[in-house]
Amino acid sequence: MTTTSTPSTRDRLLDAAAELFYREGVGIGVEALCRAAGVSKRSMYQLFDSKDAVLAASLKRRAAGYESQLLPPQDDQRPPRARILHVFEQLEAASIRPEYRGCPYLATQVELKNPDHPASRVARKVKDGLTAYFRSEAERGGAQDPALLARQLTLVFDGASARAGVGAETLDGLTPATAGALLDAAGIA
Amino acid sequence: MTTTSTPSTRDRLLDAAAELFYREGVGIGVEALCRAAGVSKRSMYQLFDSKDAVLAASLKRRAAGYESQLLPPQDDQRPPRARILHVFEQLEAASIRPEYRGCPYLATQVELKNPDHPASRVARKVKDGLTAYFRSEAERGGAQDPALLARQLTLVFDGASARAGVGAETLDGLTPATAGALLDAAGIA
Repeated sequence: MTTTSTPSTRDRLLDAAAELFYREGVGIGVEALCRAAGVSKRSMYQLFDSKDAVLAASLKRRAAGYESQLLPPQDDQRPPRARILHVFEQLEAASIRPEYRGCPYLATQVELKNPDHPASRVARKVKDGLTAYFRSEAERGGAQDPALLARQLTLVFDGASARAGVGAETLDGLTPATAGALLDAAGIA
Repeated sequence: MTTTSTPSTRDRLLDAAAELFYREGVGIGVEALCRAAGVSKRSMYQLFDSKDAVLAASLKRRAAGYESQLLPPQDDQRPPRARILHVFEQLEAASIRPEYRGCPYLATQVELKNPDHPASRVARKVKDGLTAYFRSEAERGGAQDPALLARQLTLVFDGASARAGVGAETLDGLTPATAGALLDAAGIA
């Protein structure tokens, strides 16, 4: 008797799922998913109740990597303005990669069109974390209205990731310039 | 012999398609589409080569309505700043409707993940029209860098429409405030 529910099967499935959903969209079927992961459908259903559960788990698995890609390292001692602009510099660097299709967490929500879907909830939480980071830095920097600034920066981030992801915008310094103007307006030097 | 290729069959199909793709996404199948439109599959294929062609045509059919919803009327005599902010006020008004799912032209591009898809090309052209409007108003208003300001305003518009469309943001004055700060920075009083 073979045991298919090992951690490595689960990880292989979730990594393949994350990549495939990102590249092709949430409409990818179970067949294609299992084929890409090299996992049988039976194994998948032993691990997860549904494709939706795989999608949600694959987004959760990537969350820490997403955050460490965008946010400064723990020992970063720069002032709030630089720490906020860092996120946009990282976004711009990611956006020029040929495989870039925008923020996976925004795209998933746009595609699912259902805020109550388990994967939408995971995505929403990750994005709320980004807004919370902006807000915390805005507070430290003495912004006039930290909550407002954090929402503005999130708009810029999501607009940029969506537009760059669909090939409508090449960024090239656009987002640090835009975020910089909003930081100026909020009084963060 | 019945003639199914009348304008009314085409219009009925495209209106149902626009609504259904907007609400459910581009993954909707031909069966569901024809059922919603009350049109046979045979009729659909007499009019269009593929579902993709229906999607592209449905987006094109809605473009004039989309523009007239967002842009000021022809006889609007207000200065550029007010004419730019008008777009964001219209966006905010649209975003509070229960059926709001974001900008259909951005969502289509995000979902298709293929800039060369005929529907992506239609969507891209409509959004380029919005950026061109911002740029023309920015030029009239004497912006320091009209092209940059137009790109920034489009980022804000798309970020806001995406975030409000997925229920992650309620706007409530956020976009006129954000656009206003960018207009200030560009020197448009």
